[in-house]
Amino acid sequence: MIGRLNHVAIAVRDIATASEVYRKTLGVDVSPPEALEEHGVTVVFITLPNTKIELLEPLGGESPIARFLEKNPDGGIHHICYEVDDIAASRDRLVNSGARVLGSGEPKIGAHGKPVLFLHPKDFNGTLIELEQA
Amino acid sequence: MIGRLNHVAIAVRDIATASEVYRKTLGVDVSPPEALEEHGVTVVFITLPNTKIELLEPLGGESPIARFLEKNPDGGIHHICYEVDDIAASRDRLVNSGARVLGSGEPKIGAHGKPVLFLHPKDFNGTLIELEQA
Repeated sequence: MIGRLNHVAIAVRDIATASEVYRKTLGVDVSPPEALEEHGVTVVFITLPNTKIELLEPLGGESPIARFLEKNPDGGIHHICYEVDDIAASRDRLVNSGARVLGSGEPKIGAHGKPVLFLHPKDFNGTLIELEQA
Repeated sequence: MIGRLNHVAIAVRDIATASEVYRKTLGVDVSPPEALEEHGVTVVFITLPNTKIELLEPLGGESPIARFLEKNPDGGIHHICYEVDDIAASRDRLVNSGARVLGSGEPKIGAHGKPVLFLHPKDFNGTLIELEQA
């Protein structure tokens, strides 16, 4: 069912400092920051030859990564995103197998403008998984 | 400097159960478990079209992931591995930039039979990074 690893998302306190770590210390290009107000994050993209790394800084009072950063003050890997061909069919398969989809269970439009769902970490080895219809 | 994302490593308590989650719920092939005694883990590989996911279960009394699982009893993403062309040159660049390499600072032979280094999470946004000479 799942296909490519679309991205690894890393939550950070300060996206400018974190971008410099990737740019200067790890020697890769980092995109300019984009404020995604409807998603509660500011994001930069690091395009590797085979996938992307996204650095996320909280934006606004309701950021979905604020609580994660309270628990992990240095930052850390927040989620991984797998691509699927058909998100509705994937959701049905997951629910039928007993796995929990976060929120209403209906796909929402994610940060890349494509339908996404998040899966309950307790059902997936403590890992927050995003599914994105590729 | 860094190239492809070689793999995402997820620490799990029970590799058989975790493998079934990926096999049945997420619908992908999972390799048979391999005990890597010198690395203190049992591992399975999940080959996605563009990268790999590795599930790691502690093996023996000195497993490098035992403490992580004490702190994260459900499991979780343990590290990400970036490929580099020349691990000695990468190490020198990192050390010159003030970043800390774990252990002696000398590359060791990793689970794939290639030279690897691990970088200090405090210097990389709370993320444990493995570098592997591709």
